[in-house]
Amino acid sequence: MENIFTDEYFMKKAFQEAQAAFDKGEIPVGAVIVVDNKVIARTHNLTEMLTDVTAHAEMQGITAAANFLGGKYLTGCTLYVTLEPCQMCAGALYWSQISKIVFGATDDQRGYRAMGGKLHPKTVVIGGIMEEECGNLVKDFFKQRRK
Amino acid sequence: MENIFTDEYFMKKAFQEAQAAFDKGEIPVGAVIVVDNKVIARTHNLTEMLTDVTAHAEMQGITAAANFLGGKYLTGCTLYVTLEPCQMCAGALYWSQISKIVFGATDDQRGYRAMGGKLHPKTVVIGGIMEEECGNLVKDFFKQRRK
Repeated sequence: MENIFTDEYFMKKAFQEAQAAFDKGEIPVGAVIVVDNKVIARTHNLTEMLTDVTAHAEMQGITAAANFLGGKYLTGCTLYVTLEPCQMCAGALYWSQISKIVFGATDDQRGYRAMGGKLHPKTVVIGGIMEEECGNLVKDFFKQRRK
Repeated sequence: MENIFTDEYFMKKAFQEAQAAFDKGEIPVGAVIVVDNKVIARTHNLTEMLTDVTAHAEMQGITAAANFLGGKYLTGCTLYVTLEPCQMCAGALYWSQISKIVFGATDDQRGYRAMGGKLHPKTVVIGGIMEEECGNLVKDFFKQRRK
């Protein structure tokens, strides 16, 4: 039987979250956290609505997933996020010891790799899933803003 | 007239927060955020109590200060924190564009400098205020834990 629970499958769910952020006038980044093919957190950027620079999709997801699991470590979990995490989120993911991170578009300006950040050595990272859609959503957002 | 609002003055308040964390069995790190010599946020590490790796003193402080100010940027603010910020907190402080950071003890293992993190280019950083007291509190905590 074909496995429907591919990285694309879950990235689509993260993308839906990013679209929800877009519709609220937030920089469109969405995330889901998955354990055993089950989504345990779905979040999107809310920095404007909450007037809080820490309210990135990933940060909320880490808090929500830990709350669901009843423990602060996210070993066994996978984060799907539409944009490469920033330094802050990479730092939080480091502390969480999350097992896997799958991101969509790269962020050459403020992504953790450009900023010199580090993930946990045990964390597997895959980039470029739905890269174009995820990246275009952010580009469209800023294009619309400049009008 | 002598200025009583020195860096030591506010670091003492951050240290009191670190002691409150110690008493709760949390890694003892405390912080205050100050604007115009007024403390607008006082926080301490709550990662154990909240089972949340993101609940560092600085992260809570950034959220609380932004809430108090009604805006997400902390320009004009100074953070006093008893331990050098980690990569996550440095990333959050970067986004906040905070004007000044004063920290107590250095963290050669997980501090943002060891981890390769970056602060905002406009942020002034001073380290080593009450360094010994701040560092000893963390050392005492882990010594007690090992017993």
